[in-house]
Amino acid sequence: MADPRSCRTIAWAGGLDGAVEMIDQTLLPGELKILTCRDIETLWEAIRSLRVRGAPAIGVAAAMGVVLGVRNSRNRDEFFENLAKSCDFLAASRPTAVNLFWALKRMKRRAEGLRDAGLEQLKSALLAEARTIRDEDAAICRAIGEAGQHLIAEGSTVLTHCNAGGLATAEYGTALAVMYAAHDRGRRFAVYADETRPLLQGARLTAWELAQAGLDVTVICDNMVAHVMRDRKVDLVVVGADRIAANGDTANKIGTYGVAVIASAHGIPFYVAAPRSTFDHSIPDGKAIPIEERAREEIAKGFGVTTVPEGVRCYNPAFDVTPAGLITGIITERGLVSPVSSDGIAGLLRDRTCQP
Amino acid sequence: MADPRSCRTIAWAGGLDGAVEMIDQTLLPGELKILTCRDIETLWEAIRSLRVRGAPAIGVAAAMGVVLGVRNSRNRDEFFENLAKSCDFLAASRPTAVNLFWALKRMKRRAEGLRDAGLEQLKSALLAEARTIRDEDAAICRAIGEAGQHLIAEGSTVLTHCNAGGLATAEYGTALAVMYAAHDRGRRFAVYADETRPLLQGARLTAWELAQAGLDVTVICDNMVAHVMRDRKVDLVVVGADRIAANGDTANKIGTYGVAVIASAHGIPFYVAAPRSTFDHSIPDGKAIPIEERAREEIAKGFGVTTVPEGVRCYNPAFDVTPAGLITGIITERGLVSPVSSDGIAGLLRDRTCQP
Repeated sequence: MADPRSCRTIAWAGGLDGAVEMIDQTLLPGELKILTCRDIETLWEAIRSLRVRGAPAIGVAAAMGVVLGVRNSRNRDEFFENLAKSCDFLAASRPTAVNLFWALKRMKRRAEGLRDAGLEQLKSALLAEARTIRDEDAAICRAIGEAGQHLIAEGSTVLTHCNAGGLATAEYGTALAVMYAAHDRGRRFAVYADETRPLLQGARLTAWELAQAGLDVTVICDNMVAHVMRDRKVDLVVVGADRIAANGDTANKIGTYGVAVIASAHGIPFYVAAPRSTFDHSIPDGKAIPIEERAREEIAKGFGVTTVPEGVRCYNPAFDVTPAGLITGIITERGLVSPVSSDGIAGLLRDRTCQP
Repeated sequence: MADPRSCRTIAWAGGLDGAVEMIDQTLLPGELKILTCRDIETLWEAIRSLRVRGAPAIGVAAAMGVVLGVRNSRNRDEFFENLAKSCDFLAASRPTAVNLFWALKRMKRRAEGLRDAGLEQLKSALLAEARTIRDEDAAICRAIGEAGQHLIAEGSTVLTHCNAGGLATAEYGTALAVMYAAHDRGRRFAVYADETRPLLQGARLTAWELAQAGLDVTVICDNMVAHVMRDRKVDLVVVGADRIAANGDTANKIGTYGVAVIASAHGIPFYVAAPRSTFDHSIPDGKAIPIEERAREEIAKGFGVTTVPEGVRCYNPAFDVTPAGLITGIITERGLVSPVSSDGIAGLLRDRTCQP
């Protein structure tokens, strides 16, 4: 099997009449199956059902989804109508990851910058833009890895939550990019991967990726973090992010906030790794980040077995918000922001290319 | 279905030639099946496989297991030989819950107090003692409920971890006894039940019990505790215990320590509810409590589905230790110990009947 660091989590195959190909992550680790999306509805369902997930990968998927939504337009008016409709449709797939909205705005802006272009030129430009977003994401992930690798010393132990790896991005990952970059330098270290209920992205995806790449990974249940931090050595935590507010408050997979609280109580540094497209400077702090609630069945029947009695309610928030005060540093493609402050973040964002 | 507050979690059916009957808790909530144990090996396996679990219920099971182990003895020498063998065998079933060892010692002491009795008298005395342990446990649980019910105010929200309910005891429970007693007084309140990976005792057992008894229960994944504590109102945490050291350090189901850390960070009171048989005054603090490690498969294949890639290691401690400093109070059948201190605990234990 290909090294998952460079596996094609999501890619556009062929020309304008091609399709989006992605790993169906709901089938891992049992089956490595490529899902082909030829229409925007299939792609929307893939985002909604977490066949593709992870904030940066969702951004890439959305950009490619826009191409699927406009490529059959018969004239310029229809193109711009389809563009607006496609963006609205895709924006409703998942509410928390800001990279989704960032990618949609970027696609719109690209088309709007070509108001005088012909229909085919518009379509080709959007396909090129979607491919650029994917390729940029891959390059950004490599840069995040380089920016953070020094944090992982020889012989250390890292803990991560959910999957912020190659499967969450175009390739290589964000939090896991830091580990891959340290591993590539020959450093040996151990990784604890929280299994990450209810959908077990840590057990299914992070463990799969890291093991494939030859890293030393141990899966634990989410509720073992505090015990592991006290009874075994954990030197640092590195996680990804779905949206980062202007002050550094960070939305990420449910459970991240609890890990941060427990890490803080044990004096363990807690890092977030994310591209600048994850920052939402329109939101002053985490209180304004919408938290997606998902279906009861993900908790109650997650494995085809009923584990919660019929009729008993479940509460299933998909994300939580870790306040900036619990975050030691944010690792981006431009370097490390530490301590985390509005000013530090504003300085990082002072670059036209990352403004949505 | 019977009210689970008084369901027969475990009972001895019939006379000396009878059997131990217990709810097979591994099948809940899908199926309510009574398992009949006619020999000590079946009962040992039931403890080991968590068909019966919860520190007080394990104590009752062990006492009844001793009866199974000695009842076929043909003379007094064989009786005492079988008694020693049975106690050693049962002691190896699970290492952490002290009630197991407490019950075995109590059964031994009972027999040793009857050195001059005839064989049949010895056997009958042990059956009576096992039944007494069960009945005392039921009465103790009622008393724990009474001692703690005032902590749950009208309109409040309680969070609990794992199952410390009627299914973890002879009946009624420890942590859940407090809720049942408040409910019986007509107080309305909401309960969050952590699902409690890997074996989901919270989702499968606590939710089942509380819903059957008409309480308002919502299941969350373990990693949602911090989010729920910050974004929704949680007034107190009540959990059970498997072993409490002389200073109040408390071993309980894995994840309890993390809940305590997170509760402390949010200023939420954290209570432990347990009978005095859970205290181990031979151990000065939690460092000396042995922590059972269980099989990889409980995490990796818990639901018949492979959720961790083949070859990837899992770490599966079944318990953790919450330091006394994070515990607001310990609710026992004799009342509330708060603040938690060695002196307060010693005062509580100063009673012959609870000394192992």
